[in-house]
Amino acid sequence: MSFNTFGRVFRFTSWGESHGPALGAVVDGCPPGIALSEVDIQPFLDKRRPGTSKFTTQRQEPDQVRILSGVFEGRTTGTPISLMIENVDQRSKDYGDVAKAYRPGHADFTYDAKYGFRDYRGGGRSSARETAARVAAGAVARAVIPEVEITAYVSEIGGDRINPDNFEFAQIDQNPFFCPDEAAAKRWEKLVDDARKSGSSLGAVVECVANGVPAGWGAPVYAKLDSELAAAMMSINAVKGVEIGAGFDAARLSGEENADRMRPAIAGSNHPEFLANNAGGIAGGISTGQPVICRVAFKPTSSILTPVETITRSGEATEIVTKGRHDPCVGIRGAPVVEAMMALVLADQKLLHRAQCG
Amino acid sequence: MSFNTFGRVFRFTSWGESHGPALGAVVDGCPPGIALSEVDIQPFLDKRRPGTSKFTTQRQEPDQVRILSGVFEGRTTGTPISLMIENVDQRSKDYGDVAKAYRPGHADFTYDAKYGFRDYRGGGRSSARETAARVAAGAVARAVIPEVEITAYVSEIGGDRINPDNFEFAQIDQNPFFCPDEAAAKRWEKLVDDARKSGSSLGAVVECVANGVPAGWGAPVYAKLDSELAAAMMSINAVKGVEIGAGFDAARLSGEENADRMRPAIAGSNHPEFLANNAGGIAGGISTGQPVICRVAFKPTSSILTPVETITRSGEATEIVTKGRHDPCVGIRGAPVVEAMMALVLADQKLLHRAQCG
Amino acid sequence: MSFNTFGRVFRFTSWGESHGPALGAVVDGCPPGIALSEVDIQPFLDKRRPGTSKFTTQRQEPDQVRILSGVFEGRTTGTPISLMIENVDQRSKDYGDVAKAYRPGHADFTYDAKYGFRDYRGGGRSSARETAARVAAGAVARAVIPEVEITAYVSEIGGDRINPDNFEFAQIDQNPFFCPDEAAAKRWEKLVDDARKSGSSLGAVVECVANGVPAGWGAPVYAKLDSELAAAMMSINAVKGVEIGAGFDAARLSGEENADRMRPAIAGSNHPEFLANNAGGIAGGISTGQPVICRVAFKPTSSILTPVETITRSGEATEIVTKGRHDPCVGIRGAPVVEAMMALVLADQKLLHRAQCG
Amino acid sequence: MSFNTFGRVFRFTSWGESHGPALGAVVDGCPPGIALSEVDIQPFLDKRRPGTSKFTTQRQEPDQVRILSGVFEGRTTGTPISLMIENVDQRSKDYGDVAKAYRPGHADFTYDAKYGFRDYRGGGRSSARETAARVAAGAVARAVIPEVEITAYVSEIGGDRINPDNFEFAQIDQNPFFCPDEAAAKRWEKLVDDARKSGSSLGAVVECVANGVPAGWGAPVYAKLDSELAAAMMSINAVKGVEIGAGFDAARLSGEENADRMRPAIAGSNHPEFLANNAGGIAGGISTGQPVICRVAFKPTSSILTPVETITRSGEATEIVTKGRHDPCVGIRGAPVVEAMMALVLADQKLLHRAQCG
Repeated sequence: MSFNTFGRVFRFTSWGESHGPALGAVVDGCPPGIALSEVDIQPFLDKRRPGTSKFTTQRQEPDQVRILSGVFEGRTTGTPISLMIENVDQRSKDYGDVAKAYRPGHADFTYDAKYGFRDYRGGGRSSARETAARVAAGAVARAVIPEVEITAYVSEIGGDRINPDNFEFAQIDQNPFFCPDEAAAKRWEKLVDDARKSGSSLGAVVECVANGVPAGWGAPVYAKLDSELAAAMMSINAVKGVEIGAGFDAARLSGEENADRMRPAIAGSNHPEFLANNAGGIAGGISTGQPVICRVAFKPTSSILTPVETITRSGEATEIVTKGRHDPCVGIRGAPVVEAMMALVLADQKLLHRAQCG
Repeated sequence: MSFNTFGRVFRFTSWGESHGPALGAVVDGCPPGIALSEVDIQPFLDKRRPGTSKFTTQRQEPDQVRILSGVFEGRTTGTPISLMIENVDQRSKDYGDVAKAYRPGHADFTYDAKYGFRDYRGGGRSSARETAARVAAGAVARAVIPEVEITAYVSEIGGDRINPDNFEFAQIDQNPFFCPDEAAAKRWEKLVDDARKSGSSLGAVVECVANGVPAGWGAPVYAKLDSELAAAMMSINAVKGVEIGAGFDAARLSGEENADRMRPAIAGSNHPEFLANNAGGIAGGISTGQPVICRVAFKPTSSILTPVETITRSGEATEIVTKGRHDPCVGIRGAPVVEAMMALVLADQKLLHRAQCG
Repeated sequence: MSFNTFGRVFRFTSWGESHGPALGAVVDGCPPGIALSEVDIQPFLDKRRPGTSKFTTQRQEPDQVRILSGVFEGRTTGTPISLMIENVDQRSKDYGDVAKAYRPGHADFTYDAKYGFRDYRGGGRSSARETAARVAAGAVARAVIPEVEITAYVSEIGGDRINPDNFEFAQIDQNPFFCPDEAAAKRWEKLVDDARKSGSSLGAVVECVANGVPAGWGAPVYAKLDSELAAAMMSINAVKGVEIGAGFDAARLSGEENADRMRPAIAGSNHPEFLANNAGGIAGGISTGQPVICRVAFKPTSSILTPVETITRSGEATEIVTKGRHDPCVGIRGAPVVEAMMALVLADQKLLHRAQCG
Repeated sequence: MSFNTFGRVFRFTSWGESHGPALGAVVDGCPPGIALSEVDIQPFLDKRRPGTSKFTTQRQEPDQVRILSGVFEGRTTGTPISLMIENVDQRSKDYGDVAKAYRPGHADFTYDAKYGFRDYRGGGRSSARETAARVAAGAVARAVIPEVEITAYVSEIGGDRINPDNFEFAQIDQNPFFCPDEAAAKRWEKLVDDARKSGSSLGAVVECVANGVPAGWGAPVYAKLDSELAAAMMSINAVKGVEIGAGFDAARLSGEENADRMRPAIAGSNHPEFLANNAGGIAGGISTGQPVICRVAFKPTSSILTPVETITRSGEATEIVTKGRHDPCVGIRGAPVVEAMMALVLADQKLLHRAQCG
C-alpha cells in the first residue's frame, strides 16, 4: 500500500536498517483471538538466521523477536502487533569503502540518486536483514491461515537444478540448502563452498507451494492473487523474476497442452479434480483450489571479493572490493522469505475474500 | 490499491465487461495543464484493436474512446479523467455452452467459486477487452512522462524466438506481430495461421523497454519499481511470468558476471556509464538511469476449438468446445497492453518520487 | 483512499464536472449477488434532484442514472459497478464573469492557485452536481446494509431550528425541506423564499440517524467509525462542521452527565439498554448498537446576486455578481447527500468488520 | 489508509497499549535529508506528558522517545522512521473491576462486541496513551513543513469560554491549560481542581491555527484538506465534534456575511487579502493562503469516581467506580495532540500537492 507497508486488509509495515539498533514490523488488521507468542514466530526466524552454516554469511545474529503490542494473555487482540528484533553483531568499520564508492549490483548508487545520501553501513535499508521483519510478520500471517501449508525450497543454484525424480519433501529440512533432492544438496556443498572460497557468488531459484488454499481467494484485474504474489516476491532483495505455475514454459505450450482439464470432484475434495496444474492454482486471478505454485529467481549476491570497476560518489573511476560478511548465495536464505511473503499475501486475500463475499 | 484500481498517486480505476454496453477507466491524480484529447489516446487503442488482421480475433470493435471529464479547453484540469469505450460487436448467443460448463484455463470456474455466479458472456469481466481500458489510461500516463519512450515487442511465439542479430526497432510496426525480426515475422505468419486454422492457440513472450527513465524513480522494499512492474504485468490477462533485466538467467550467472560495472558518465549523460544492464535498469527497487527492461510470458489462449474434458456448473463430467471469436495468440495484442502498464507504473513512480524528494 | 475515491473495501470513485457531458461513479468491492437495477437508485437521485421546488436551483436535470457494468441478470456480480448520469441542462454562457474573476466563498481562487487554471463553467468539478454521483453510489451502499435504516433531515435553516417536541419522522417527506417539524417547515417557506427573492442565501444544519447498526462496526484509532463519518461529511460541498452524538455540547457536560449508562439488554434486543445516547452510537470508534447520529453544518450558498468585492485572475480589484442558477439554501438538498455518505461509510465498515472478525 | 495508519504519502502507523512494554509509531514517506534527532521530538512529548500538574493524571511517564531507524548522521534518509516510547509507570492491579464490567463512555463494551475480548489494562489500545505516538510522529511532520507554524490552545473548559478580547498567544505556555486568556486560566484552576477533588470530569474545546500554509494545498472532493483534518481530529480519543473556520456558526450566516471578500494581495504577501476568514483558510477543499483554523470538542473524561450504573461482561446489572489515575479534563492534554494531527495532515498534503502539481 505504501513504500514500507504491504497488504490491503492484513498489512504489515517494516522498518530498520542493517546497522541500526533494531528492525521490526507492525502487523495490522490481524483477526482477534488467535493464539500467538514469540514461540510461534522464532522458528521461522531461525530458519533464515545467518551464520548457521559455512554456506551463509558469518554475521552472528540471534534474531530474537519480541512482541511489543497487540497480544494479550496469549491471544491477538485485533490491534497492531509490533514485532522487534535487535541488531547485535554489527561491524560498521567494514563499510568505509562503500561510503566512498558504489558497489555494482547494489543499491548504493540508486539510493544516492534518489535521496542524495544514504546509510552505507551494510547497505542500510537495502540490506537483506530487512527480510527478517518479513519472516516475523509472515509467521503471524501463517496463524491467520491455518488451513494452508506453505513450503519453499531451492530448486537450482548456479544453474545446477534438482532432479524432479529425486524430489522428497522430507529432505528440505535435512540440508543447509532447503533442497528437496539429496543428491543435488551434496553437489551444492562443493559448488557453494567453492564460490565462497573464491570470493564469488551464485544465483538460485526458489519454488514455493501452498497447499490447502480454497477455490475463490483473489480478485479479478488489479488485485489478482498472481499479481499480488508477483509484487510480493519481486519486492524481495535480489529477486529478478517470478513465475506462476508453468510460467514462461506456458508460453511454449499449445492451448490444448496448457489448459488444465477438469473432472468431477473426487469424494471428499472441495474442488474439481484437475488433470494438471499449469495454472499454478490460479485462474483469472482467483485460486482454483489446487496448490498455489510460484517460482522466484534470485540473482547472485552482488558482494564479491574480486575488484570490480566502478565510480566514486563524486563520479571518478575506481575499483571496489566488497569486504564485510555476506552470503555466497543469498537465494538459499531466500526460501524462508519466499514462504513468508506467500503467507502474507494469502492471509490478506483470505480476509479480503471474506470482506466481499462473507 | 484496490480490486479495480491500480496506482498510488497517479491511479486509474477500470470498469466494464465484454458484453456490457461499454467499458472504461477513470484516471485520477493526473497533473494539471497537460495537453490531452481523444486524438492522443486513439492511436494506442488502434494498436490493440481486434480484427485488424487474420491473426487476431475477428470481433469488430472500433474502440473509439470518449473523454467525459477532467479535460477543459484541451488540457487536463487535475480532476478525474473519465474515459469510455462502447462495446459494439457483441454476440451473446455464442456463449450458451459457457453458461452451463467451465472452459479449462478460463476464469469460469473460479468466478463461480468466488462470487456464486458470473456474467458468462465473453468471459464478462475476465475478458481481454478490459485491457482496452488499460491502454486508454496508459495513453494518459504517457503524457505525464514525455521524457520516457516506451516500446514493447513480441520476442517469441509458440517457442519460436527472434534472432537478436536481426533486431530492428523499425520493423516492429511493419508486421502484425509487433515483431522486431523480419525473418521471424515471416515464420510466425504460417505458425499463427496454422494454429488459427486448427482451432488451436499459441503462447508468446513480450519484451518492453523504457528509455529515458532518470535515475532515482522507485522506492526501497515494498513499492519497488520492479515490484510495481511485476504486479502490473502479472495483472494482465493470460500472463504467467515476469522478468526484470536478465531475469531467471541472472540466477545462472556468477556475481562477477551479473554485476553491471560502472564508469564515469559519458559527456552529456545524466548517469554513469554501465558496461551491461543485467539489472534491467533497476537496482534496490530504484531506477539506475539505464533502460528499464521487462519480459512478460503470455500463456496460449484458453479458447480452443477442440473438445476439452471439463465439468458442468453442477459438477458433472462433460466436454466443451469454445465457440465464439478469439485470438489464436493473445500475446500479440498483449504488446500494447504491456506498454500501457509500463507507462502507468512509471507515471505513478515519477509523481511519487516528486512527492517525497521534490 | 485517493483524491476522488472514497472507502477502503467498499469504495467508489466519482468523476465529472458541472458542465461536462456527464458525471458518474464507479463502485468497487460490492458483494456479489445483490439485487440491483436503476430502479433501486433513481428514487434517491430524485430526492436530491434540482428544480423540484422554487426553493432549489431551477436548473432542470432529470438525473437519470444508467448502470454500465457490474450487474448481470439483475444482480451485482462483484465486479465494478459503473454509474453514469448525463448532464442535460447546461448554460455555459452564464459563467463568463466567473472565468475572469473569483467568486468569494467559492473554489475559484483555490483551484487556480492549485492547478493554474480551472473549468469555470458552473464551478466545474467543485460544483454540487458531483454529489449526484455520491447519491447514486450511496444507493448501492444501502443495498449492502439492508439491516440499517438511514434518515437525514434538516433541523435548522438560517438559524431557525426545529422544535424537538414537534418531531415527526413522517413529516420529513411531506415538505420541500426534509423537515420533521411541520411548523418549522411552514416558517422556512417564507424564510427561504425571501432569501431567494433578495438574491441572498442561507445556511442549514442536517442531522442523520442510522438505525440498525449492530455493535462492533468500526475500528480503533485511525479508521474509527466517527473519524470516517467526519471525513465523509466534511467532504460534501459547503460543509464546515460535523458532530457525533452530543458533539460540541458534550464538551459542556460533566462526566456523570455524558457517560451513557448501561442496563442489561431488553428481551429481544441484541445490545445492552443505554439510558442515553450522548455518544451518538459510537464509543472508541466502534458502534455501540444504538442509533448512529451525526450533525452536519452547511454554510450558505456562496452564489449571491448582490455585488461582492473580489479580485480578477490577474489580481486587480473588481466586483462580482453571481449570475446563473443556484440554490438559496444548498443545505436542503444536502440531506440526501448526507444519507448517501452515511450509507457509504457503513457499508465499508460492515465489510471491513467482516474481513477482520469474520 | 488503514486501521492504524494515517496519511497517504507522508504516513505513520502507530502501535502499543497503555500497559504494554512500549508504544510507538513508524513514520513512512518522509523526505530525505531533514535534520532530525530525539531533541527535535522530545519537547512536544513533554507538552502532553502526564503528571506535570495537579490538573492532569498523576501517572508518571517520562515519555522518552527513541529513534530506531530512518535517521543517519542526524538526517532523515527517506526510509521509515521508527519511534519508540517505553511505558514505565503501569499499575495493572488498578484494573480488576474493568475486566469484569463495562465503564460507560469507555470503549470497554464496544471492544468486546467487536473483538470478543480486550486488553482491559488502562483501556489497552483505546487509552489516551496512544496519542503520545501521534505527538512523536507530529514532531517529524513539523520538520517537513518548516514554513508552517501550528498552535493549538484550549478555548473552553466545562462551558467556561475564554474572552477573545483577552487573547494573548504568549499566555498559552504560561499556564497548565494551554489557555491564551490569563483570566480564564485563573478561573479554570478552581474549576478543574473542583472536578478533580469531586472525582468528576470536564469537557473542553481546543482550537488550532496553522499559519504559513500556502494557497493550493489540499484536493477537491474526497481528500479535501478540511475532510482530512476532520478525520484526523475525530480520530483523537474523546473527540465528538470538529469545525473548520466559522463551523456551525456559518450555518447561521447569510451568503453576504459568510463569503470572505477578497482584495489584491498586500505588498509582500503571496496571496490575496481576505477581509475575513469564515472559511478557516480552506475553500473547495484547498487552502486559500489564510490561516487554517479548526475547532475540536473533547467530551469529559469518562473515568469518574462516582458509581455508575452499568453491566458486567455476562450482561448482569452492576455498578462501577473507575479507580486508577486519569485526567479530570482530558481535553487539556488534547491540545498538543491536535497540533500533531494538524502537522501530520499538512505534511501529507504538502507532499501530495508536490506529487500532482510539482
